[in-house]
Amino acid sequence: MDLDGVAKAFVDHYYTTFDTNRATLVGLYKEDSMLSFEGDKYKGAANITAKLTSLPFATCKHQITTVDCQPSGPAGGMLVFVSGALQVGEGEHPLKFSQMFHLMPAGPGNFYVQNDMFRLNYG
Amino acid sequence: MDLDGVAKAFVDHYYTTFDTNRATLVGLYKEDSMLSFEGDKYKGAANITAKLTSLPFATCKHQITTVDCQPSGPAGGMLVFVSGALQVGEGEHPLKFSQMFHLMPAGPGNFYVQNDMFRLNYG
Repeated sequence: MDLDGVAKAFVDHYYTTFDTNRATLVGLYKEDSMLSFEGDKYKGAANITAKLTSLPFATCKHQITTVDCQPSGPAGGMLVFVSGALQVGEGEHPLKFSQMFHLMPAGPGNFYVQNDMFRLNYG
Repeated sequence: MDLDGVAKAFVDHYYTTFDTNRATLVGLYKEDSMLSFEGDKYKGAANITAKLTSLPFATCKHQITTVDCQPSGPAGGMLVFVSGALQVGEGEHPLKFSQMFHLMPAGPGNFYVQNDMFRLNYG
């Protein structure tokens, strides 16, 4: 699978997991993982997952608009840049967002999220 | 200067240069630099600068809304995630955008742009 294919597969997996069982996202992060969520910073799989599961909505649905991808350097990482919309309840107006992930290798054919930055696009 | 300070200084420098003399952005990229611009891919300082200088507006003004920053790994790189608005002519409606940069060290206290991904936020 080429890089764009890997990025797309990751994005599908990440947001499907987010929308169905947020707590299991913990498996995608490690101790050196970092999350910036609307400017607030979290470090480590446990803290990151605690933040994501504490978001004040019971159900959500991500819709992806664009996925861009580039290799991040000789260590085999990849940068994934996503735009989309997030609906946090029946009949609510979708919120546009942008998010970037830096994926690093975690064994053959496997990646974990080393860097994660999320912002809503207001206005 | 801490990482957030470096990120902010880079962002100020980058967009001021973009808005005043786009062609000189060439000095911020190298041969291994990559740009994804609205999904189109460019590689190397010359190709990237050719794309940026060919954008069909004579003047522009970036206004920055948020800057997030994280270290990208042991090689000393940093990830910078920007949201803002771009005005491309007098009296035109500003266009919201998101952009991410992966900066890598280029000598003491110096960085170059290894990865650059840009998207307008439509809607």
